[in-house]
Amino acid sequence: MKNVKVKCPGTVANLVCGFDILGMALHEPNDIMRFKLLDEPKVVIINKDEFNLPTEPEKNVAGVVLLSIMEKLGDNTGFEVEIEKHIKPGSGIGSSAASAAGAAVGANHLLGNIFSNDEIVQFAMNGEKLASGVKHADNIAPCILGGVTLIRSIHPLDIIPIPSPDLYVTVVHPQIEVRTADARQILRKQVLLKDAIRQWGNIAGLVTGFLKNDHDLIGRSLEDVIIEPVRSILIPGFNEIKSKCKEAGALGGGISGSGPSVFMLSKNEATAKATEQVMKDVYDRLGIEYNTYVTTINKKGVEIVSGE
Amino acid sequence: MKNVKVKCPGTVANLVCGFDILGMALHEPNDIMRFKLLDEPKVVIINKDEFNLPTEPEKNVAGVVLLSIMEKLGDNTGFEVEIEKHIKPGSGIGSSAASAAGAAVGANHLLGNIFSNDEIVQFAMNGEKLASGVKHADNIAPCILGGVTLIRSIHPLDIIPIPSPDLYVTVVHPQIEVRTADARQILRKQVLLKDAIRQWGNIAGLVTGFLKNDHDLIGRSLEDVIIEPVRSILIPGFNEIKSKCKEAGALGGGISGSGPSVFMLSKNEATAKATEQVMKDVYDRLGIEYNTYVTTINKKGVEIVSGE
Repeated sequence: MKNVKVKCPGTVANLVCGFDILGMALHEPNDIMRFKLLDEPKVVIINKDEFNLPTEPEKNVAGVVLLSIMEKLGDNTGFEVEIEKHIKPGSGIGSSAASAAGAAVGANHLLGNIFSNDEIVQFAMNGEKLASGVKHADNIAPCILGGVTLIRSIHPLDIIPIPSPDLYVTVVHPQIEVRTADARQILRKQVLLKDAIRQWGNIAGLVTGFLKNDHDLIGRSLEDVIIEPVRSILIPGFNEIKSKCKEAGALGGGISGSGPSVFMLSKNEATAKATEQVMKDVYDRLGIEYNTYVTTINKKGVEIVSGE
Repeated sequence: MKNVKVKCPGTVANLVCGFDILGMALHEPNDIMRFKLLDEPKVVIINKDEFNLPTEPEKNVAGVVLLSIMEKLGDNTGFEVEIEKHIKPGSGIGSSAASAAGAAVGANHLLGNIFSNDEIVQFAMNGEKLASGVKHADNIAPCILGGVTLIRSIHPLDIIPIPSPDLYVTVVHPQIEVRTADARQILRKQVLLKDAIRQWGNIAGLVTGFLKNDHDLIGRSLEDVIIEPVRSILIPGFNEIKSKCKEAGALGGGISGSGPSVFMLSKNEATAKATEQVMKDVYDRLGIEYNTYVTTINKKGVEIVSGE
């Protein structure tokens, strides 16, 4: 196979109480990436969008992933990649993870699927390292595997797919900048044991809710006493959106990744749309531009759309 | 109904990474409690064992539970209870919880089951308050409901039964004293965020392992980076027992409750017995007296044995 087109979904990391360990893939938005095999060891990046991301491979998320694969191969293989990004960089719905995961999956596909899922995740994590300074997998894993994933451990890498109910997801991306690195910086290095206990009760509840398809338990468990109180300060209107979305029937939700996007889970499309209206009303009133998505959990992850 | 006999199982709280939120009931050992309804508002406690526990109701775990029920009733109802304790006080396998849970379930049964499970747990928690100074439910809930239980939250009380695989449990109780209150005292009030993240990854993994009946995942998730490193110092031979039991095939395990008992989970009886032998060998060599139990997860909880 000489070329391949790949669809890379947006993802919501953390899932409120699951900081750094949980994530889920969305049906919308998606990036499109087209890969070609080259017979010299270089990476060529072509941007097909308006984001002006760096095209030097060492400074590009997809680029560093492809370079790490080439290093592993140690031969004359190279890659050309066209990136058509629809997931806005800095939105908090896994824009860098989509590039990183897409690069790893696309390259692996061209190479005849020689790498395992764990290896693909490892390659893709090099992209997250470039983007945020940290080799985290809570966007990468759901982007590649689809559905909800648990990163039980990074060292050693232990990714557990969590069967998830067919929930609707509403996302609002207010057009303000929150840098992942900054959002990490403001977190306290230490937390109260009693808060940690409350958090791990909620995480256990959330995972149980997913596995038992218990919507009420999912809703009750979507509580974050550690990260959200600190990070939500960076997101205008956060508390109002959260409380009004729950009044509108959403099960619950919170900051997507490190923000500024906010997501809410709902049992059905009508509630997901009512939730979207709440989000629009708040940001219209605050005079902040935004995008919204009403979508569902994507159980497939990165998809090979075509290849020849 | 005028009298009732109740069997109250031992329990393992915390389950390694699930400090204060997880617990499970055992088939062995059990306390036996016999209750009679009295027509004057008093509590009479009769000890049928050698432990010399206090018989003043205000100082007795079962007594304070019965008093709290009488306070709720506000009439002339009273209770006589004979306690035949087999779960040694201070063993770390839920001796006080068995008395507290047995008292609440037994009294409720005599009263015609007028209270809900949540109310029974609330009454029983008064006994834990007396025993350890803290109203915790991680022994109470599995003692009453059986199986593995998650206490997602204490305020408000939110108890989630977790379907659990048919695992064997080996317990060793070295005859040394570790007071629950002391074991709480030595814990740090603050923990590193990175340790908390590792812990909640393990908790999510453990719960997922139970729900998916994935023994390997259960084993990998039985890791505690927060409580065990501090508390295990109080238990002679702990690290040796843990590593040798895993070599003998146990999935994993750790401190039962606040100790000094240590428990291990195994897939089958042969491994559970090999694990028991490891425990015996270590304490024989250290010259410390002990009891051991090879048992299974008790899915029923407190049981009404007979009544008339």
